[in-house]
Amino acid sequence: MADLTPNPSFSLTLRLEIPQQPGMLASVLQVIGQEKGHVGQISLIQHTRSALVRDITVAAASTEHAAAIVNAVKQETAAKVLDVFDRTFRLHEGGKITVTSKLPLHDQDDLAMAYTPGVGRISRAIAEEPALVHRLTIKNHTVAIVTDGSAVLGLGNIGPEAALPVMEGKAMLFQEFASLDAFPICLATQDVDEIVATVKRIAPVFGGVNLEDISAPRCFEIEQRLQAELDIPVFHDDQHGTAIVTLAALNNALKVVKKSLADVRIVINGAGAAGIAIARLLKKAGATTILLCDSQGIVSHDRPHLSGAKQEFAVATTGTLADALQGADVFLGVSVPGVVTLDMIQSMAKDAIVFAMANPIPEIQPELIYNHVAVVATGRSDYPNQINNVLAFPGVFKGALACRAAAMTTTMYLEAAQAIAALISPNELQPDYIIPSVFDRRVANVVATAVEQCARSQGLARC
Amino acid sequence: MADLTPNPSFSLTLRLEIPQQPGMLASVLQVIGQEKGHVGQISLIQHTRSALVRDITVAAASTEHAAAIVNAVKQETAAKVLDVFDRTFRLHEGGKITVTSKLPLHDQDDLAMAYTPGVGRISRAIAEEPALVHRLTIKNHTVAIVTDGSAVLGLGNIGPEAALPVMEGKAMLFQEFASLDAFPICLATQDVDEIVATVKRIAPVFGGVNLEDISAPRCFEIEQRLQAELDIPVFHDDQHGTAIVTLAALNNALKVVKKSLADVRIVINGAGAAGIAIARLLKKAGATTILLCDSQGIVSHDRPHLSGAKQEFAVATTGTLADALQGADVFLGVSVPGVVTLDMIQSMAKDAIVFAMANPIPEIQPELIYNHVAVVATGRSDYPNQINNVLAFPGVFKGALACRAAAMTTTMYLEAAQAIAALISPNELQPDYIIPSVFDRRVANVVATAVEQCARSQGLARC
Repeated sequence: MADLTPNPSFSLTLRLEIPQQPGMLASVLQVIGQEKGHVGQISLIQHTRSALVRDITVAAASTEHAAAIVNAVKQETAAKVLDVFDRTFRLHEGGKITVTSKLPLHDQDDLAMAYTPGVGRISRAIAEEPALVHRLTIKNHTVAIVTDGSAVLGLGNIGPEAALPVMEGKAMLFQEFASLDAFPICLATQDVDEIVATVKRIAPVFGGVNLEDISAPRCFEIEQRLQAELDIPVFHDDQHGTAIVTLAALNNALKVVKKSLADVRIVINGAGAAGIAIARLLKKAGATTILLCDSQGIVSHDRPHLSGAKQEFAVATTGTLADALQGADVFLGVSVPGVVTLDMIQSMAKDAIVFAMANPIPEIQPELIYNHVAVVATGRSDYPNQINNVLAFPGVFKGALACRAAAMTTTMYLEAAQAIAALISPNELQPDYIIPSVFDRRVANVVATAVEQCARSQGLARC
Repeated sequence: MADLTPNPSFSLTLRLEIPQQPGMLASVLQVIGQEKGHVGQISLIQHTRSALVRDITVAAASTEHAAAIVNAVKQETAAKVLDVFDRTFRLHEGGKITVTSKLPLHDQDDLAMAYTPGVGRISRAIAEEPALVHRLTIKNHTVAIVTDGSAVLGLGNIGPEAALPVMEGKAMLFQEFASLDAFPICLATQDVDEIVATVKRIAPVFGGVNLEDISAPRCFEIEQRLQAELDIPVFHDDQHGTAIVTLAALNNALKVVKKSLADVRIVINGAGAAGIAIARLLKKAGATTILLCDSQGIVSHDRPHLSGAKQEFAVATTGTLADALQGADVFLGVSVPGVVTLDMIQSMAKDAIVFAMANPIPEIQPELIYNHVAVVATGRSDYPNQINNVLAFPGVFKGALACRAAAMTTTMYLEAAQAIAALISPNELQPDYIIPSVFDRRVANVVATAVEQCARSQGLARC
């Protein structure tokens, strides 16, 4: 199923030479509009007596759509296409993060203090008093973003190199939203023992470990073993980040429809890292009726060879996702594009809540269901109600590192969800505003405060 | 043996309230001078009718010396000491490097291109065409600075945490001198197999590996195996960085005394990573008479249990370092503070060359020998002729990464040394200027050019 909504991830910049005559720009924009491209920024680059050079940014829905728009401009307007570039590719040239110095290095004095011989005094101090590493190095504000490239976005097992752009993006988010430094560690192994051993060996530099895009069920064991064997917090964002934000949004969505978590029938589609973590956190938060589905339908006791994680949520009922959705109050999709039909949605209970969070293309396009359900959320930034992990992980790490928490706990995640949900006051709450924007700068701080307080009350804080 | 020269690595800032009377500042400076502190920056922070608050930066020679200076100011002047801070420790608070975004993240469009869903297009492109990782990620300008903390500066085996400040400093230098991004990987293992396995597993993110402060003889095997098993360049800076800069400086020193490399008798003290690498590179460059010494004296065939690396340079002669130095033309020290006496220096040949490169305290203090030899160099930034690896490694990596070299080679190192030495023209050359300053911005570029050309002529360039 194609994604039919133009969005910035497919945006182009067209550099056009447009003849200096009335109505010419309008005719170019009209052609782009006919092709269903969304026009963004229009800049004037240069003008001569006879022509203007302009950069026009256009959002398309796919690579093919983008090519069709360029072609139409070439064929149907008087403009000359001087250059076309794909904005997303252009922006990724050379990568997205940089490691820079916080201090000047202008002269011998700077060098003698920051490097030899002065740095030797700092190293000696840490060797004599190991806790000083938290004060005199980058450790206590630096997070390892660890992946093996086995479950990257909706792309699957594409390996560590192809995962790197995502991890760089994650590092940007850590800095932007929590002022934390994070660095991508993309591992050329998918063996659980090797991953655990490797992360333990590189741990001295880091104050925390964010596991990312590691496929289930290996991710559960990796997280558990690392948390047991390391003295710094370990957080698998695909599990807990997703679960925290989903719970926050669901709490608010339930307020909109005036239903309670304990009473609603919840269908979770996708029994990977995110699905299992959501199920676990919802249960902890008080949900009682959860139907977990995977590609074979409802996870039921009847099915042979269920993983341990799936067994936790196996039920007596059998059936397809469509069966599960009949009469359900809540659909939480963390699966694949297009697996939900309008018929299925229409079979849900009155005032249904649908979180179609598959990325980049949802389980069902929101446009199709806005008139049929009470609340819709997706994982995307170009729709309302974005269930985005960036609402959770920066603050979670910020809070945990601030008090040098020894570990992450489920209680911290419940508190974080509560803090996020509470940012939307009762009179602000509405169907298309159940979760704060990722650009709401209050979020990371309230999450950090909630996590830090929780760490302190659980006796996990170490400073 | 104490280091008696005040230097910035032991500098303090004294915040003093000085009575507003003529001659008061002078009397404070006089007391600091009597205590042999070196006064640097003096800033006026605040003034009232009766007093001035000033920050006075003072370089001391040791922690004890610094304390003595503070005490003298307290006891012998009318100034009130409001605050004293150690500038080197202050500067290290929170570490020295940061990981930041190269792009804005101001709105949903930015996020949709740099992160999901746009980043998925980049990941898919790399999955389909793996070479794109060099263009669309940080890989081709990012270096792993890998240590196990086993041989850190002059401090020895202090472990990965205590090594971190040094690796952060190194990362600063990579950025400052070669505009490369580098990140510290401090390993919680000193096992050769584990180090090799770990570095191989984290390699996908990096364009090159800089090994640092790993003790001999393990460093030789680690470097060799990694270079054989990885397709990115691997460089052990303690070996080759030191060897390149030593060779460059020695070439110029020999010009000063009008001797030739093939004819001189060279004593190298220290048979660790640096000593062995210097011996190997000098031999490759044409040196014929090298006496390698370690803590037991001349490395001779008679000695049992010599490591493979030492066997390469074992000689028939036996004796102490003092024996080796009699009549020698060149002393190259990469060993420990204070092992060379003035008597030993005086026993050397006419127009002797002495590189006392132990860090932070040289084999013999330069002040003691300036009148007895022709050329003196050290590893320190606060004396002339600093033999500093920073002259080599930034340019070496810059050149290797620019052409995506498959490996580093000894020929590259010879070319790099030649390029550094050639920056000092015959009419500039003099005993206290045999090597460019680390702040000579030409250095990294000429080294990079030399290494890149060499890679191309050796068929190692891949773009």
